[in-house]
Amino acid sequence: MERIYNFSAGPAVLPREVLEQASDELMNWHGCGMSVMEMSHRGKEFTSILEAAEADLRTLMAIPANYKVLFLQGGATLQFAQVPMNLLAGGSADYIVTGDWSKKACKEAGHYGTVRQVVTTEADGFTSFPTWSGLDLNPDAAYLHLCTNETIRGVEVLDFDSLPTAVPLVADMSSHILSRPMEVSRFGLIYAGAQKNIGPAGVCLVLIRDDLLGKAAVGTPTLLDYAVQAENHSMLNTPPTFSIYMAGLVFKWLIRQGGLAAMEQVNIKKAGLLYDVITRTGFYHNPVQPAFRSRMNVPFTLRDPSLDETFLAQARQHGILQIKGHKSVGGMRASIYNAMPLEGVQALADFMADFEQKHG
Amino acid sequence: MERIYNFSAGPAVLPREVLEQASDELMNWHGCGMSVMEMSHRGKEFTSILEAAEADLRTLMAIPANYKVLFLQGGATLQFAQVPMNLLAGGSADYIVTGDWSKKACKEAGHYGTVRQVVTTEADGFTSFPTWSGLDLNPDAAYLHLCTNETIRGVEVLDFDSLPTAVPLVADMSSHILSRPMEVSRFGLIYAGAQKNIGPAGVCLVLIRDDLLGKAAVGTPTLLDYAVQAENHSMLNTPPTFSIYMAGLVFKWLIRQGGLAAMEQVNIKKAGLLYDVITRTGFYHNPVQPAFRSRMNVPFTLRDPSLDETFLAQARQHGILQIKGHKSVGGMRASIYNAMPLEGVQALADFMADFEQKHG
Repeated sequence: MERIYNFSAGPAVLPREVLEQASDELMNWHGCGMSVMEMSHRGKEFTSILEAAEADLRTLMAIPANYKVLFLQGGATLQFAQVPMNLLAGGSADYIVTGDWSKKACKEAGHYGTVRQVVTTEADGFTSFPTWSGLDLNPDAAYLHLCTNETIRGVEVLDFDSLPTAVPLVADMSSHILSRPMEVSRFGLIYAGAQKNIGPAGVCLVLIRDDLLGKAAVGTPTLLDYAVQAENHSMLNTPPTFSIYMAGLVFKWLIRQGGLAAMEQVNIKKAGLLYDVITRTGFYHNPVQPAFRSRMNVPFTLRDPSLDETFLAQARQHGILQIKGHKSVGGMRASIYNAMPLEGVQALADFMADFEQKHG
Repeated sequence: MERIYNFSAGPAVLPREVLEQASDELMNWHGCGMSVMEMSHRGKEFTSILEAAEADLRTLMAIPANYKVLFLQGGATLQFAQVPMNLLAGGSADYIVTGDWSKKACKEAGHYGTVRQVVTTEADGFTSFPTWSGLDLNPDAAYLHLCTNETIRGVEVLDFDSLPTAVPLVADMSSHILSRPMEVSRFGLIYAGAQKNIGPAGVCLVLIRDDLLGKAAVGTPTLLDYAVQAENHSMLNTPPTFSIYMAGLVFKWLIRQGGLAAMEQVNIKKAGLLYDVITRTGFYHNPVQPAFRSRMNVPFTLRDPSLDETFLAQARQHGILQIKGHKSVGGMRASIYNAMPLEGVQALADFMADFEQKHG
């Protein structure tokens, strides 16, 4: 089989050029006689890889100088604990619950101190993001946590201008980081598991504003103390070197594509192709309020769920894979991260239209 | 440059065949149209990779059925905290300090409860392992922690028969796991960062006896609770999929080499070649007591340290790389894990003999 169109929510498709380069360099990186996987993390070769990855990410995201860039382990799930361990400092935190991931983050944080669930949109099926006016936010909270793109239900905050500014914002951006320009300075801390829009699983990106460092609670494992990791340039111990290398290749690829403004234009186009097919008739359905429909994760159901298996089987014949919806939602989900080419989304949209015509 | 002989202490050399296979499969694993890095961790492809890795490891190490095999993140350094978080259960633990790593483990554990440093060999420069008779061990300790191979000083416990049995043993085996047959049932818990003798950095192996599960302290991050990870087959969240795949390829390679008994014979031979050169005259020196000289990490100094730079430069010309000693010890260190071929060690031994002849 040729390479296919892979709509997995994560780990997810990577740019073909990046995989080709990784394959070419796998045995012998830049003529040094070693694979990246074999390099001492303290040696000049890997140091150059790490430094380039950070520099390229800073360029792409225009990260202000007063933010540290950390390459950590444990994914977003470990951040659910690491954030309150490092930031609560005996205070209270506010959580906005808009989907399965922010709900988990809120629950985990509760083990570390006072955590308030300010609002949840669960009653309406996690299909929107709350409006900020009228929310009972704590002006003295250590931070306000939100997930700016909920991978499972496909709910995205597209407008950052309206975000509150009274307390540091902590955002789980795992599934839409790098999908468009984002003003880092609106946030105190941004975290993102790599395996959606950054690179392979095994590395988790954390951007943290300087003034939030150094508040870790007693009992925080040394490896999970942001301040210690910042001091050690993410190398208190051996970092996930190959995953960082791959992320670095993805950053260079994004720069070659024209950066995040260019990616945003493609991502708008890609999402539009799918939502157009989904909303055209009642054959497909997406329950998310239009203003919050994610450009990265497009879940949809078929009006007639008995067609699901046929849809999946025929999709596979068209080289369209990993499109089954999350088990908690059912139906389908097309994750269309940066690395999914426009042709792949076009192929899916065409297949969906064709399938509707035959079975509608 | 051709591929070289890489004596790094970790991340370290990987078997050439394994890298070749990884390179061949990088774009398209077994014809599925995806890279391993792009697969959903819940899909049948990756599930088969994870299951094969565990099954092959169980075969190689003859792991009893009442032990769980976990593929975690954060390296041995996170285990320094995770072990006491999970096992102390309000009790006390004993630590044997025989080098830099067990010292760090002991210090970190102290944040989580009562930890006794039973003995330290630091006064003699970490050059031996204490004899067990006469040690003031706590018969009620939750566990007794030791590092069975100290990577930096090259101190290895070669005789497991004399290990105490009164309380569960917890062993950091990062730098010699899989180097020879080891009786897993002597230990309550074994942990090992992958980047020495298992595979690339980013995954940490934990073997844990069933009865030690389920004792995690309040405040242990859910991801770091061994019981939760055991229930979820190491997939509470996205595991480091590519690192696990690579570890699985290494396990299959070890099986093809004849398993751990065969590896032990080669490893004895490899270590012998180096210690023979080191001890033959006074030109080179290794301070470790002969009974505890590591087969995996062979540190040595030159009688005349002013020759160090010349040694390193000429070694490089012979394709011998990453042999500089740890900064806390100086001199040289040859890490000769499973993947270092006998020819590589022979090349180093020949070079050392030749260098001695020219400069001795």
